[in-house]
Amino acid sequence: MNTKQLKDYPVWEKLKQQAEIMKQPENHLKHLILKRNRLDTCLLKGAGMLYDFSHQRIDERTMRLLFKLAESRKIRASFTSMVSGESINVTEERAALHTACRKFSGDPVFMDGKDIMPDIRNVRDQIKGFVSQIHSAALTGSTGKAFRHLVVIGIGGSYLGTEFVSCALQEQAISRMKLYFLSNVDIHNFGRIVSEIEPETTLWIVISKSFTTPETLANARLAYEFMEKKGLALKKHFVIVTRKGGPGHHPATPKLASFDMFDFIGGRYSVTSAVGGVPLSLYLGNETFERFLKGAEEMDRHAEETPVSKNLPLVAALLSVWNNNLLGYPAQAIIPYASPLRKLAPHIQQLGMESNGKQVLAAGDRLDEPAGTIIFGEPGTNAQHSFFQLAHQGRPFPIEFVGVIHPRYPQYLDSSKGVTNHQELWANLIAQATALAAGREDGSPARHFPGNRPSSTIVLADLSPENIGRLLAFYEAKTVFEAFLWGNNPFDQFGVELGKTVADDIRQEILTRNGNENYGFSKSDQIARYYLETLFSGQP
Amino acid sequence: MNTKQLKDYPVWEKLKQQAEIMKQPENHLKHLILKRNRLDTCLLKGAGMLYDFSHQRIDERTMRLLFKLAESRKIRASFTSMVSGESINVTEERAALHTACRKFSGDPVFMDGKDIMPDIRNVRDQIKGFVSQIHSAALTGSTGKAFRHLVVIGIGGSYLGTEFVSCALQEQAISRMKLYFLSNVDIHNFGRIVSEIEPETTLWIVISKSFTTPETLANARLAYEFMEKKGLALKKHFVIVTRKGGPGHHPATPKLASFDMFDFIGGRYSVTSAVGGVPLSLYLGNETFERFLKGAEEMDRHAEETPVSKNLPLVAALLSVWNNNLLGYPAQAIIPYASPLRKLAPHIQQLGMESNGKQVLAAGDRLDEPAGTIIFGEPGTNAQHSFFQLAHQGRPFPIEFVGVIHPRYPQYLDSSKGVTNHQELWANLIAQATALAAGREDGSPARHFPGNRPSSTIVLADLSPENIGRLLAFYEAKTVFEAFLWGNNPFDQFGVELGKTVADDIRQEILTRNGNENYGFSKSDQIARYYLETLFSGQP
Repeated sequence: MNTKQLKDYPVWEKLKQQAEIMKQPENHLKHLILKRNRLDTCLLKGAGMLYDFSHQRIDERTMRLLFKLAESRKIRASFTSMVSGESINVTEERAALHTACRKFSGDPVFMDGKDIMPDIRNVRDQIKGFVSQIHSAALTGSTGKAFRHLVVIGIGGSYLGTEFVSCALQEQAISRMKLYFLSNVDIHNFGRIVSEIEPETTLWIVISKSFTTPETLANARLAYEFMEKKGLALKKHFVIVTRKGGPGHHPATPKLASFDMFDFIGGRYSVTSAVGGVPLSLYLGNETFERFLKGAEEMDRHAEETPVSKNLPLVAALLSVWNNNLLGYPAQAIIPYASPLRKLAPHIQQLGMESNGKQVLAAGDRLDEPAGTIIFGEPGTNAQHSFFQLAHQGRPFPIEFVGVIHPRYPQYLDSSKGVTNHQELWANLIAQATALAAGREDGSPARHFPGNRPSSTIVLADLSPENIGRLLAFYEAKTVFEAFLWGNNPFDQFGVELGKTVADDIRQEILTRNGNENYGFSKSDQIARYYLETLFSGQP
Repeated sequence: MNTKQLKDYPVWEKLKQQAEIMKQPENHLKHLILKRNRLDTCLLKGAGMLYDFSHQRIDERTMRLLFKLAESRKIRASFTSMVSGESINVTEERAALHTACRKFSGDPVFMDGKDIMPDIRNVRDQIKGFVSQIHSAALTGSTGKAFRHLVVIGIGGSYLGTEFVSCALQEQAISRMKLYFLSNVDIHNFGRIVSEIEPETTLWIVISKSFTTPETLANARLAYEFMEKKGLALKKHFVIVTRKGGPGHHPATPKLASFDMFDFIGGRYSVTSAVGGVPLSLYLGNETFERFLKGAEEMDRHAEETPVSKNLPLVAALLSVWNNNLLGYPAQAIIPYASPLRKLAPHIQQLGMESNGKQVLAAGDRLDEPAGTIIFGEPGTNAQHSFFQLAHQGRPFPIEFVGVIHPRYPQYLDSSKGVTNHQELWANLIAQATALAAGREDGSPARHFPGNRPSSTIVLADLSPENIGRLLAFYEAKTVFEAFLWGNNPFDQFGVELGKTVADDIRQEILTRNGNENYGFSKSDQIARYYLETLFSGQP
C-alpha cells in the first residue's frame, strides 16, 4: 500500500530537472528521432507485441531516471502482490485477481489461505459446457428454436470490454449469432434492440456483480415484460452472471443458468471472467475465447516476470507519468489503424479513467501529483480527418498508435494504383507519428508545424484472438502500473457514489409525484425542481 | 478579419481578474447554484431549445464582462458577414455559406455580386427528384431491383455529420433502407460492409469535394472492382457528390447522378448540403431531411438576430472561452442522455477540434491565448459507469449535458417500480450536474467530493428532425462564435497538410519497393525504414 507521495523519492526531483532539460530546443523531438540507433533504446518486443517509444520526448538519461522511479516505488513487487492474491484493493479490503481468470498453468493462487483456482476453473468449464449445449441446440428457447440473438444487459465494466473484444473478433463469430448490448437505461437503447431481434431465438445475458445496478435491473424488467408479452418462458431465455449468494440468486429471478462472478474481480477488469466469458463464448465460440485468454495470460506473465527496462506495460506506464506529471499533458489519445479495434478507446477510457481518476493515495492522503488522464480516440485514418488539426497545431496530447501487419480480408489487398489500401493505411500511420514529432518550419504562421508532439506505436502481427488478449492485458497491466506509480488504488471507484446518492433523492421525488400530481418537489433545490416541473409538464 | 489578440481588449484584463475572484471559496459552485433566482440569469430559451448554464462558474458580473468581450470583438457582426457571403475564410479567400443550404426564405445571398440561392435550390430540387425516383423504384440497380442498401464513401466531414443525423433519426428511416459508412481506407471497413450488403440492391454514394481524397478514391476503386466482379453496371450503382467541374466529372467516373458541392461550404459544415442531403434524403425521405433543414434554419436566424445576452450559441461560445482560457480547462465533454445522440460527440469533436485547434489569428499572427479544446463524450448514463470517476474526483473538465423530454418508444414507458426508465434517466442527468457542482465534504479523503465542476444543460422537447437540425446548427454557430472570439479562422485546416505530405513520401517508398523487392527504402529515415521493413517482412 502506497503511503508515500512521488515527491518523497529523491529521483522525482531529478526527473523534474530532467523534464526542464527535455524542454530545451536541442531536445526537440525532430532531433531525438534522428539520434543514432534511436530504436535500439526505444523499441521493445515481448509477449508477441512490439512497443516503440522512439517518438516520446525522452532520452536515455530520462529512461534511467524513470526506471529508478519504478524501482524506488517497487511497482513490480506490487504487481506480484496483485497476482498472488494479496488484499491490494485496500479500501475495499480485497484482492484484485483478474489475472487468475486467464491462468492455465495449474499453479494455485491463494487468497486468504484458500486456492481460488478450482472455482475459476469450474466457471470456465461451466461456460464451456453451457455454450456447447447452446451451439448444438441441445438447449433452445421456449419454442424449441436455436438461439441466434444474444443481448447483454449490463453497463460499464459489464459490457465495454466485451464490446471491444467482440468487435475486434467479429469475423470469428459463430455465423448464426448476433450480439447486442443493452447498457443504457434510456428506452431508446431497448427500443432499437427489440426492433432488431427475434424474441423466440433471443438469449438475454444479465450481468451485474451486485445485482443491484439500477440500469441493469430496469432493463431486465423491461426485457421480462417484453418476453412475457410474447408468451415466452423467461426461465428459458435468461442467464445471469452475478455474485454467488447475491440477490441475483433470488428464486424469483428467472434463469436458464447462472455463472459466478467473484468479489476479487472488478468490473472494468472483468472481461476475461464470466462477464466476458459467457457472451464472448456464445458469440465467438469457447475455443476462440480461450485463445483470447491465453494471449492475455502471456502478457500477464511478461508484465510480472520482465525486468523494468524491458517490460512493455511498465515502460508504457512510466511514459504516462512522464507525460502527465512531468511534461504536463492532461489527455491522451488512442488511435488504432485497424477499424476492428474501434472500441478499444472507449474500453480503455473506462479502464484508465475509472481506475486512476483519483485524488488520494491508496493509503488515504490527498495526492500531491494528479493521477489519471483524459483518454479518448477514434480509428486512423478517420481521426486524421476529424481532430488531428488540433493534434498538429493546437493543444498537444500524446498519442498511442496501434498498427496491424496482416489484415483480415486479404482478398481486398488490391494494388491497382501500385500500393494496396492496407499499405496506404500504414503510410498514414508512419507519417502521422513522424509529422507530429518533426513538425515543419514555414514562414507562414498558419502553415507552420511546431512538432515536438509525442507518440508511441504498438504493433500487432494480426488480429488473432491471442493478440486481442495480449492487447487487453497490456492495457490492464499498464493501468495498474500507472496506479502503483501514482500511488492510488486502481480498484475502487468512490467517485461515482455521490451521483448515485443524489439520483436516489431525485428518484424519490419523482416517485412521490407519480403518486400525487399536486406534489411540488419540495425536497429539491430550485434548479432540480425546475427540471422536474419541466419533465412533468412536457414543455421545455 | 481578426488582427487583434484577446489581450488587446481592456475587458480581457478585467476578465482575468474576475476569474481570480470566481476561484475564491465563496464562489464555489455549491454556493452559486443556490443563489436566489439563479435560473433567471442562467437559463435561455430560443429557437426551440433550452440552454441552462446555472452550473457554470460564473456570476452576473462575469456574464456582463463576457458580453462586453463579445461586443468588443464584434462577433455578431462577423456572423452576419458570414451568412451574407463575405469572404470570411480569409486564408482560402472564400465565403463560408453553410447557412445558405437551409435557407427557405426566398431572399438572395450574394457572393461576389452573384446570388447563390438559385444554385442551392437547384441542388435541393435535384435531390428531391432523384430520391423520389429511387423510392418509387423508377430508378433501380442494373438487375432491376429496388435499392435497399446505401453505402456512403467519404471521410471526415463527408460522413460524420450524416452519421450523427442518421443515427439520431433512425426511427424515421424508410423501412427498406440500410445505411453504411465506408470512411476508413482500412480494408476491414470495406470487408465488413460488403459482407452485409446485397450488391444488386446497393447504391454507393461517393462524396469528396475535391475528388482527390486518397481514402475515398481508394475505397471507390475497391467498390468498382467488387461490383464489376458481380457483373453489375457501375453507372447504375454509383452517385457522386463533388465540386462542379472538378475531377469527379471525368467521363471515366461511373455515375448514375451527380450532385454539386460548393467551394463555399467546408466539409465539417456540410451536412445540410448535398453531402448530407443525398444520403439522408435517401435514408430518411426528403421530407424528413427538409424538416431537419428547417430546424437548422431557425437556429441560424436565432444566432444572427438575437442580442448577445439572449443568444444561445453565442453565450455557449463565451463560456467555452471562459472555461478554456480564463479557468484553464483543457477539455470538454458532451454527454447526451439520449442514446440516439451517441454520434453527436464524434461529430462535434471534428467540428470543434478541426475548426478551432489553431495557433494563429485569422490575420496570421501567432495566437497569444490558445484556441480550441479537446472534445470527447459518450451517452449518459453509460458515461457515468465509464469515466465519471475522473470527472468527479480527478482532473476536472466542463460538460455539456443534453436531455430530451419526450423519448421515442413510449410503449416502453413502463413504471413497474414506480418510476419509468425514462424518469430514471432524467434523475441521473439532474443528479450528475448537481453532484459535480456541489460536491460533498467527507472526512475520508477517498470519499470526499471537491465539487466546483462546471456543466451546462441543453434540453430538447423531443428527437424530431427539426430539433436535430436545431442542435446541429447550435453547435455550428457555437463553433464559429468561439473562433470569432479566439480570433482564428474556423474554416481552414492547414494542420492536416503535413501528415499528407509525409504520407505521400512514404507511399512513394512503398510503390518503389512494390516494383523492386531489393529496394532498401533509402529515402526514409531510420524509423520509417524500420516500419517499412517490418511491414514487408510480415514479422513484427
